[in-house]
Amino acid sequence: RIDGDRLWRTLMDLAKIGATPKGGLCRLALTDLDKEGRDLFVRWCEEAGCTVTVDEVGNIFARRPGRSPDRPAVCMGSHLDTQPTGGRFDGIYGVLAGLEVIRSFNDQGIETDAPIDLIVWTNEEGARFSPPMLGSGVAMGVFTLDHVLDIRDTDGVRLGDELARIGYKGEVPVTGHAMGAYFEAHIEQGPVLEAEDVEIGVVTGAQGQRWYEATVTGRESHAGPTPMRLRRDALAGAAVMMEAVEAIALEVGGDACSTIGRVQVHPDSRNVIPGRVWFTIDLRNPDPDALARMDALLRERLAAIADKRGLTLELTDFWAFPTTPFAPELVGHVRRSVERRGLSHRDIVSGAGHDAVYVARKVPTAMIFIPCENGLSHNEAENIKPEHAASGCAVLADAVLATAG
Amino acid sequence: RIDGDRLWRTLMDLAKIGATPKGGLCRLALTDLDKEGRDLFVRWCEEAGCTVTVDEVGNIFARRPGRSPDRPAVCMGSHLDTQPTGGRFDGIYGVLAGLEVIRSFNDQGIETDAPIDLIVWTNEEGARFSPPMLGSGVAMGVFTLDHVLDIRDTDGVRLGDELARIGYKGEVPVTGHAMGAYFEAHIEQGPVLEAEDVEIGVVTGAQGQRWYEATVTGRESHAGPTPMRLRRDALAGAAVMMEAVEAIALEVGGDACSTIGRVQVHPDSRNVIPGRVWFTIDLRNPDPDALARMDALLRERLAAIADKRGLTLELTDFWAFPTTPFAPELVGHVRRSVERRGLSHRDIVSGAGHDAVYVARKVPTAMIFIPCENGLSHNEAENIKPEHAASGCAVLADAVLATAG
Ligand SMILES: NC(=O)NCCC(=O)O
Ligand SMILES: NC(=O)NCCC(=O)O
Repeated sequence: RIDGDRLWRTLMDLAKIGATPKGGLCRLALTDLDKEGRDLFVRWCEEAGCTVTVDEVGNIFARRPGRSPDRPAVCMGSHLDTQPTGGRFDGIYGVLAGLEVIRSFNDQGIETDAPIDLIVWTNEEGARFSPPMLGSGVAMGVFTLDHVLDIRDTDGVRLGDELARIGYKGEVPVTGHAMGAYFEAHIEQGPVLEAEDVEIGVVTGAQGQRWYEATVTGRESHAGPTPMRLRRDALAGAAVMMEAVEAIALEVGGDACSTIGRVQVHPDSRNVIPGRVWFTIDLRNPDPDALARMDALLRERLAAIADKRGLTLELTDFWAFPTTPFAPELVGHVRRSVERRGLSHRDIVSGAGHDAVYVARKVPTAMIFIPCENGLSHNEAENIKPEHAASGCAVLADAVLATAG
Repeated sequence: RIDGDRLWRTLMDLAKIGATPKGGLCRLALTDLDKEGRDLFVRWCEEAGCTVTVDEVGNIFARRPGRSPDRPAVCMGSHLDTQPTGGRFDGIYGVLAGLEVIRSFNDQGIETDAPIDLIVWTNEEGARFSPPMLGSGVAMGVFTLDHVLDIRDTDGVRLGDELARIGYKGEVPVTGHAMGAYFEAHIEQGPVLEAEDVEIGVVTGAQGQRWYEATVTGRESHAGPTPMRLRRDALAGAAVMMEAVEAIALEVGGDACSTIGRVQVHPDSRNVIPGRVWFTIDLRNPDPDALARMDALLRERLAAIADKRGLTLELTDFWAFPTTPFAPELVGHVRRSVERRGLSHRDIVSGAGHDAVYVARKVPTAMIFIPCENGLSHNEAENIKPEHAASGCAVLADAVLATAG
């Protein structure tokens, strides 16, 4: 029904663009390499007979027409951008599984009633431009277009300028695209499916996230002649805060997670007691009450540490989304497909945010997970089995067909 | 005997080059601003009748001739480079106090038997190019010239290239300069003199230092779907190590100090569990045995933390010097001057490294400290009182005169 070998070859072809020596990918959003990846994808879609359009935030839509052109499209998609030390499958798998669905529908002369759109969302990772899920966020009205075009990377480069530079600032209005349903296939990015030797995760929703930025301010002074008792060392305080952030997730337990991914120390000189430290915090929990408890603990504990050490703490909310359930009807299509195909499966809640989370606010949405090796993602060693890639793609095809008629 | 107003005006003139909005200086070694500061200093020295030479590592020597040109010079000096967020007096005070000594000797027609050399040492701070005290280190045979010329800043720019670029790669051989004695006036950079309301610190030596670089390696993975128990989070481990580094100084007590000044997190993305963290460690103690104990504790505790968390730790020695006593005879000249002038004073051990520490390995050396406001240094708010600046300069003049005959 779908061609697993072709899917794998296509994945490997795209993995050449931005390949790292360690076998991963570095293809940050809106770089020259992202453009190269997008260009290749667009060529493949056109070769498959699709009409390609690009919206104002660089989201790419490849349309396979249906019998009823006025029906809202049944959509598949994901993203092509990666983390700085990312893998070959995060996002990319979902996009190319969608392409394989279109190619195999073509091969088999399958017509659908609704048109099918294959979508590449801009800057899902939130690595170069933060927060994540910007393209889907603008499309779903979560962010304004102007706000997102004005987001800057750490070098101060504007997202909108980069979009224009690589030729993906499209004309199509970013909101109001008629989507009847959205399916996103993705690698799990965690260890559950592999540990239970399960082929497909039927994703029922995504856990909630809260992201913060913390700035700790103390007093810069000389690392030598300043006695310990007179120091207001922003980094010594920040280190204790980082430990507290880890402890919160351990204490709350269950599926609670906490991560500090970025740290900046000022003035960043070996013999200067740091006067200021900035770091990011990422809290997650599938249980909304538990996430709220983590938030309260975070505010309370970090403030207490700052207080005790004579430091100033500025803790700002950077980004958040609540626990997001997917559409039972579409999840049902996915479940029926795996059952009919006799694939081992389990229900699963996504630990990561995906474009599907934002799309789900406006459009019936479901996701399909396949296992990844050692549960590893956001790592150059990220890997999957070709047979899992093929199974996930077949389930995607079934679900799209069931929806598009 | 010396002109305190002129000294202050000269300090304020030099403080215009690289001035920061917060009232400090950013004049990193071998930048355009460092060149501008050096050029102004050289002009002032030539106007004061000195002959200026530059050695192969950019150290500047301004000579005021003596009656016996073959006697080794009695030297004064310090440095003109600053920290990224440094003050107006650290180093600069010692250089310009020396210039004021020469100017006032000229005004009063004072002749000395030995020549007098006023020295500006290259890259004392160790901020742009690390470790500190590179110019004096090469001159005293602590480092080879080739090694130092090849040191790179964080952008990968070579010290030797920058030296040539700003026109301070001199011809004079860097070793073998005939120095009969060396006096360095400096701000205390700590709180002791101010707290005891003392005008002059008679510096008997400098405490020992050990600098390290630590690299903690874990496993990069996704901040969302990776359960806490499966993480090997390099930053969570590094944070506990940073706390341990602070605790070592507190436990060992006395004058023990420990500082972490720089941290780099890899891959530095908000939703990636850090796979690698690099940080610097600076341990100090005037008591050599206590410093050795701190070193042993550091190795033991950091290794235990890494072990417990399944992380790899690479701890490398970056730089060190032992507790360094100054020359009793020259310290005696300083002490006799403050006594004769009726200045309040106390003996003090330097908490910071200075060029004097390296010079003391080959040449009889002493230092003179003056108080600084709130004991603050390596901070843009660094400040001193004009009357303290004048007193320290007068003591420097006395000590030089007593030595140069
Ligand atoms: N899938 C993925 O890596 N998304 C980025 C947003 C997140 O960190 O959850
Ligand atoms: N005086 C001074 O700041 N020297 C730099 C070396 C040190 O950190 O002790």
